[in-house]
Amino acid sequence: MARAPKKLNELFHDTLKDIYFAEKKILVALPKMAKAAQSRDLAAAFEKHKKQTEGQVARLEKIFRIIDEKAQGKKCPAILGLVEEGEEVIEEFEGSPALDAGLLGAAQAVEHYEISRYGTLKAWARELGLNDAVSLLEETLEEEKNTDATLTEMAETVINQKAEAAE
Amino acid sequence: MARAPKKLNELFHDTLKDIYFAEKKILVALPKMAKAAQSRDLAAAFEKHKKQTEGQVARLEKIFRIIDEKAQGKKCPAILGLVEEGEEVIEEFEGSPALDAGLLGAAQAVEHYEISRYGTLKAWARELGLNDAVSLLEETLEEEKNTDATLTEMAETVINQKAEAAE
Repeated sequence: MARAPKKLNELFHDTLKDIYFAEKKILVALPKMAKAAQSRDLAAAFEKHKKQTEGQVARLEKIFRIIDEKAQGKKCPAILGLVEEGEEVIEEFEGSPALDAGLLGAAQAVEHYEISRYGTLKAWARELGLNDAVSLLEETLEEEKNTDATLTEMAETVINQKAEAAE
Repeated sequence: MARAPKKLNELFHDTLKDIYFAEKKILVALPKMAKAAQSRDLAAAFEKHKKQTEGQVARLEKIFRIIDEKAQGKKCPAILGLVEEGEEVIEEFEGSPALDAGLLGAAQAVEHYEISRYGTLKAWARELGLNDAVSLLEETLEEEKNTDATLTEMAETVINQKAEAAE
């Protein structure tokens, strides 16, 4: 039986479910990363990003309402892999001077995943004429880019030097 | 028995193995994405990026030589998840006008993963004083950013409009 061809609105909805699932996983992962971090600044950055992520989840729920769909997640293999990499860093570098550098690297990989997904969703929302969704996605995209920039700054100034100094 | 604390050079080596594994998986995934793409331009972009990826693998092998280690991969759960998402798009949107938009989205998620990893590796190489590795990582990082920009342009101009027009 031939399947009906799926369209951009369905791809948008699918990808919205994917990032909704991802944000919920990130909400669970961030406190673990904050607890593992050696630097107080890094722990505070993870805690702050958790609060931001709660706001991002709320924005996604608004977008589900805009497209008249129930807010629900769909298993996102990418975020499961990304979170697993963070867990591996905690496991393998516990007690090591390089732990925080590794946590920062893992967190930035997650940020970049989100930046790509929100960029894509924003482009699709614009094509679909979903202007309110475009604004909501833009707000989150800017937050993610700022978080990534903050993490880059932390990585380049404090953490790497600490890890190197211990050698 | 207490483990010896791992240092930044070990984190660098671990992450190098991780991206080496990832690039090899991407080499296998790109021809499948090129074959699935409806637009010739998109298929050509994937083919071009495959050639680029071969050069990136060769650069990684040079970096393994710089740090006097054997070039070998280490299972990278993130890339497995990211590639799986691309395969899901092909499976779920085959024959759909939105297929190319979905392929572009999946490819950009992979690009962003690589951008974050190469950015992190470059920062660590600089901290470790591995200047030749910094240059090699910078070359690849620029290529990945350019590829991402090309995909964004394709997504915003041709493909999304096509997917929308079909609704």
